[in-house]
Amino acid sequence: MPTGYRHRQGDIVYEEDQYELTEDGRIPIPIRRTAKYKDGDTIDWLHEEGLERERTHALQSQVGVKGILLPTLDSARMWFVVIATGFAIGIAGAWLDVLVKWLGDLREGRCSYGFFYNSNACCSGLDPGEVCQEWQSWGDYFNVHSMFGHSLLQASIYVVLAIVFAGSAALLVVTYAPLAFHTGIPEIKAILGGYVFDAFLTPWILLIKALGLALAVASGLSLGKEGPLVHVACCVAYFLSRLFKEFRHNEAQKRKILAAAAAAGVSVAFGSPLGGVLFGLEELDTFANESDVMWRGFVASAVAAVSLQWVNPFGTAKLVLFQIPWVILGIIGGILGSLLIRLNVEIALRRNALLRQWPILEVVCVSAVTAAVSYLIVFARYRWPIRIYRFSDQYLRVQTSELVANLFQECDPAKGDYHGLCNPTATAENVFLLCLTAVLKIILTAWTFGMMVPAGIFLPTIGIGACLGRAMGLIMQSLYRAYPTAWMFLSCPPDPSVRCISPGFYAVIGASAMLGGVTRMTISLVVILFELTGALSHVLPIMICVMTSKWVGDAMGKDGIYSVWIAMRRYPWLPPVDYRDRGETGANLMKPLSEVVVIEDAVTTVGELKALLARHQYHGFPIVDKQDELVGYATRQELLTVLDGLQLDETEEDMQKKCTFSKHRLRVPAEERVDLSNALEDSIIQLRKEVPQELVVSMFQKLNLRQILFTHAGKLTGLVTKRDVVNLLTNHFPHAAALPQDSSHPQLS
Amino acid sequence: MPTGYRHRQGDIVYEEDQYELTEDGRIPIPIRRTAKYKDGDTIDWLHEEGLERERTHALQSQVGVKGILLPTLDSARMWFVVIATGFAIGIAGAWLDVLVKWLGDLREGRCSYGFFYNSNACCSGLDPGEVCQEWQSWGDYFNVHSMFGHSLLQASIYVVLAIVFAGSAALLVVTYAPLAFHTGIPEIKAILGGYVFDAFLTPWILLIKALGLALAVASGLSLGKEGPLVHVACCVAYFLSRLFKEFRHNEAQKRKILAAAAAAGVSVAFGSPLGGVLFGLEELDTFANESDVMWRGFVASAVAAVSLQWVNPFGTAKLVLFQIPWVILGIIGGILGSLLIRLNVEIALRRNALLRQWPILEVVCVSAVTAAVSYLIVFARYRWPIRIYRFSDQYLRVQTSELVANLFQECDPAKGDYHGLCNPTATAENVFLLCLTAVLKIILTAWTFGMMVPAGIFLPTIGIGACLGRAMGLIMQSLYRAYPTAWMFLSCPPDPSVRCISPGFYAVIGASAMLGGVTRMTISLVVILFELTGALSHVLPIMICVMTSKWVGDAMGKDGIYSVWIAMRRYPWLPPVDYRDRGETGANLMKPLSEVVVIEDAVTTVGELKALLARHQYHGFPIVDKQDELVGYATRQELLTVLDGLQLDETEEDMQKKCTFSKHRLRVPAEERVDLSNALEDSIIQLRKEVPQELVVSMFQKLNLRQILFTHAGKLTGLVTKRDVVNLLTNHFPHAAALPQDSSHPQLS
Repeated sequence: MPTGYRHRQGDIVYEEDQYELTEDGRIPIPIRRTAKYKDGDTIDWLHEEGLERERTHALQSQVGVKGILLPTLDSARMWFVVIATGFAIGIAGAWLDVLVKWLGDLREGRCSYGFFYNSNACCSGLDPGEVCQEWQSWGDYFNVHSMFGHSLLQASIYVVLAIVFAGSAALLVVTYAPLAFHTGIPEIKAILGGYVFDAFLTPWILLIKALGLALAVASGLSLGKEGPLVHVACCVAYFLSRLFKEFRHNEAQKRKILAAAAAAGVSVAFGSPLGGVLFGLEELDTFANESDVMWRGFVASAVAAVSLQWVNPFGTAKLVLFQIPWVILGIIGGILGSLLIRLNVEIALRRNALLRQWPILEVVCVSAVTAAVSYLIVFARYRWPIRIYRFSDQYLRVQTSELVANLFQECDPAKGDYHGLCNPTATAENVFLLCLTAVLKIILTAWTFGMMVPAGIFLPTIGIGACLGRAMGLIMQSLYRAYPTAWMFLSCPPDPSVRCISPGFYAVIGASAMLGGVTRMTISLVVILFELTGALSHVLPIMICVMTSKWVGDAMGKDGIYSVWIAMRRYPWLPPVDYRDRGETGANLMKPLSEVVVIEDAVTTVGELKALLARHQYHGFPIVDKQDELVGYATRQELLTVLDGLQLDETEEDMQKKCTFSKHRLRVPAEERVDLSNALEDSIIQLRKEVPQELVVSMFQKLNLRQILFTHAGKLTGLVTKRDVVNLLTNHFPHAAALPQDSSHPQLS
Repeated sequence: MPTGYRHRQGDIVYEEDQYELTEDGRIPIPIRRTAKYKDGDTIDWLHEEGLERERTHALQSQVGVKGILLPTLDSARMWFVVIATGFAIGIAGAWLDVLVKWLGDLREGRCSYGFFYNSNACCSGLDPGEVCQEWQSWGDYFNVHSMFGHSLLQASIYVVLAIVFAGSAALLVVTYAPLAFHTGIPEIKAILGGYVFDAFLTPWILLIKALGLALAVASGLSLGKEGPLVHVACCVAYFLSRLFKEFRHNEAQKRKILAAAAAAGVSVAFGSPLGGVLFGLEELDTFANESDVMWRGFVASAVAAVSLQWVNPFGTAKLVLFQIPWVILGIIGGILGSLLIRLNVEIALRRNALLRQWPILEVVCVSAVTAAVSYLIVFARYRWPIRIYRFSDQYLRVQTSELVANLFQECDPAKGDYHGLCNPTATAENVFLLCLTAVLKIILTAWTFGMMVPAGIFLPTIGIGACLGRAMGLIMQSLYRAYPTAWMFLSCPPDPSVRCISPGFYAVIGASAMLGGVTRMTISLVVILFELTGALSHVLPIMICVMTSKWVGDAMGKDGIYSVWIAMRRYPWLPPVDYRDRGETGANLMKPLSEVVVIEDAVTTVGELKALLARHQYHGFPIVDKQDELVGYATRQELLTVLDGLQLDETEEDMQKKCTFSKHRLRVPAEERVDLSNALEDSIIQLRKEVPQELVVSMFQKLNLRQILFTHAGKLTGLVTKRDVVNLLTNHFPHAAALPQDSSHPQLS
């Protein structure tokens, strides 16, 4: 073939696959090698994601126990690095604070009984008002007593030390690690965006940056430690990630770790775990790519804040021991939240099957039952013990918002007791009643959510969680009263009459746990509960609890209540999950050309086009030429409008005119054609069908596409629509499309 | 041409553009029509964005005043709808609360002096401990005195009213608006994701949902009002957006408004403005697509919270009048923040030109100056007034973190006065000193940030802002002391000895304003400052202030300090901005085929390939066949690895072998070729060069691509790399690439 080989219909037919059989009949498995980037490169995310995909695919396809164990181990490694980074940066941040404080104080004086104490540590243990004699200014230390001499000495030492600190910081940076200057955030932003700059993250930079930072801050220069701490955190994460091959060899994975580390860095720098996650989100723009990254940032940030508080040499270690009941509440919340979702689904399905015709009757009955449970047991007071009456009156009759507000409140004798909730002699009874209320509310809520009334799930869920949390708080309180010296209460005074456990605070924690289990939200949940309750000290416990509850809940089923309802009603919504295929390509997802309705450029007549538009309700049609070469894509709507605009008659002659969309029109005499090229869309995205399925899914998720056309060498080979992708992502859900939309609402085309 | 028309090199050459000249020589401007979607469709975002692009392009291309005025008016319309929605939903939420409270109380009794008062309103104005006589239970009202009869009556009315409320809610929903049932969040998620469901957002649904919600909540069913309020907010936004053609006719624009409305809905439902933004972010997944959407959600959420507080019939209108100084602080912060950025850039450029060789000397000098300004003025006490000494000692010598902590603190006689800051007789002096400190700190910070020491910008910025804010607070305080009855202080008691203005709180506001101006962050800034200061009541003022400061700052230059440094150092980072082209297409951005180094499949020999790899340091090369048809893409690295794996000799014979990548290999005898198909990448994204430039940019931003190949009918026409896109997005910045990276760091290929 002298004019060049063409793959043409009618020619010899070849396998269209990129990787066809080799001559000896083997299927060559493409062995992906790690791309080695030089500093200054930009990484190829698609390539790196492809590598990761092949790696996880290889892990999952292992047979037997290995097939289960290896992927688990793999995700454990990721979490290990994330948590270890958070831990390390929390400790590093704490010690950096100590160093800075000491260096800073050194400009003014020294501690008489130990050179390495800062002024606070030196003067600790004094009564209020007592003057600290142990901290000596340099003037006192050198016994300079004249006013002028004293001031001169102080000022000289101050200025000289400031210059020495700043100078040595600069010397260190210039000599050993010029890249450790400045804040580092611009570079981190670039690195997270794909810039390769490994020289910026070496252990050497880590050391110089941390040391230089302490010196620079102590020198009194007008600078802060926040940005540099983010850089330090990323260096730590880089160092830890080098321990594992999968991060060392995959630039995309490495960046996911770094994003979490950056969040931890801000968390420590400001003592603001929420702020850390949001900084990563907004300023580093890392989480737009993957929801899991936000989740990891959340965990790293919380771990860093906890370890900062734990080491905090100025503070106490109070926080850590109390975390056990929070984690338990988180686990309970995760389990009960998943149960509530399942119960709600079951009831929705039953309702759809049995009660469909009597929606008002259903509402009336449920409201009667709710009211009866909440109120009518009042009559039982004549026979049942008074407690049951009090229970019904106490926890179910009041509006949930009032109940929640009261459960969140601490017991305060001045404010009065809320239905005996603070009565220390009735703990067992209160715990029982609170648990009973929670169970009843779970059943009522699962039934109510989905009836024909406007209904939100948030408040009832908060109510359930608050009951459970308060019950846990009461249990802890009575444990403390019984065993005030147990190891769990080490940080409490050993005198049980002192208030150390706050049941109201446990109610908040319980509410977050339950809400986390039902909605699977993370950061917004923490902020909402935090704004609801208002105490800053609640942030970290709420975060820990939401973390646990989401982990446990996700293990019992990935979807939150809203996603479940979307799947049941079959809305075309793409969950922002990180989809991983198992080796499938676009070819597995696409509708092949043979099943696609296409318009043939310069072949299809106006009459045929009109018939086609009348017959098929698809949103749009690809336009191809005779050889299936893709000419373009036009929506049904545009085609109809352009056709209308041409004002063709219904004559035989007009109906026989060819529709042309491209320069192919020149093949057809001018009087035998109509030009429809205005109907073509500008923005067509083409892929080859060999692309991994995850890339197709991620393009739909991120670019909000409606369809992708698949071509090979210019020829249309198939089509994927959003509906196909939605089906792919929701088909794991057992009741997908179980609740078809109301007949008043048109089905999706 | 009997076998079908082919656009082939050597054939007749046609314009490659989709919209070529028509036969009569006119350039046909494609008139985009509005796609009319039916309910149940999924919108085509690319199409809608294309429409919006053409519309804004048409607006911008207007000549004269119109060309300036119309785009401004256009963005004003968007903000009008966002703010009006926030306002409306705040008011709606407040009145819904009133209705629910009244209906709920009605189940228990009525107010003796007016049927329409709820129990709280009925019993307001009582002294603590006084028993409310005005609120009558139904038993009292109907004069039933027997214990049993009273209980029976109360219970019956309670249950009957609960059933009546729930039943009428269900009746309303079933009869008039079946879509108003349930929470509405799954549908809102689907709609924001592109599902067309206009029937879900009608005014009728709005009415029934709001009324039904009040009835359902009042009936005591186990449900909350949060989700439905989000639905109501979206209905309001939909209604308001219908007023303007550009939202009515553009589904993508409409969804941007709806996303902001959803945030406002959560803000009102929970009284949690931050939570609203984050809910939109996390659960509705709306902001992943565009950073502006988050910003609009932020504004809508804040406006809704303000108007909720304003109407709040149970509360006071205290908040509103104080917002004027906050807004002024926001404006000052925006201006000074921009100035700080410019100053920093100027100094960085000077440093690069003049001081490059003496980095350590520079640090030493600046630290000496800083220390001197901060300390040495101590000697001036002998000549200068004592005040200057105090100033230096007070505000500059202490570490910034300590200064900030003290400025944030309220004056409390028990805690002692911080260097006379609380002395009411020295207000003018304090204001002067605070402003002087701020100015000095701006200069020192602009100089320090960029020197060869690790340096963060956050803390100094907070310090500057806190000084300014505290100064403003002192001014307000003295104004209040002078004119306690002025209209601005209406909500304060008219007695000036009462504390009504908190200068410490103003310092927090000032810090947010300054930080907003320097970093241009929004939500993470609010959270960080909030966690730093810890008082919940600060959230809304901080939000308002950050809003103002960002608006003002953006008007003076779009980029925050980090983006400016990234641009100066020319890192390949893509800002997540919403890029709008002015009609350019991919063709304007791409490097055309003639300038692209390609490998020819089955033509290029091994020797040539090796020479090519040695000569060009590009990351990868497109592979084409003789007719420029795209075969694939291979990275330099992969090619080198595969070549290495083949273990070819350096013999003439081996060097003459052809490199084959595809089935074209069959053209070459087996002994004359080497198979390099393993080096091909799976994931190639192809576009046509007619696609709008904004789509190309957005694909790079969202998919993290490294390159996009442009093809036409299967033939390679050009290539765009990330670097091209970065240059496009940063070329508006005057000093782009002004600070080349250090020579120790390799230049970007």
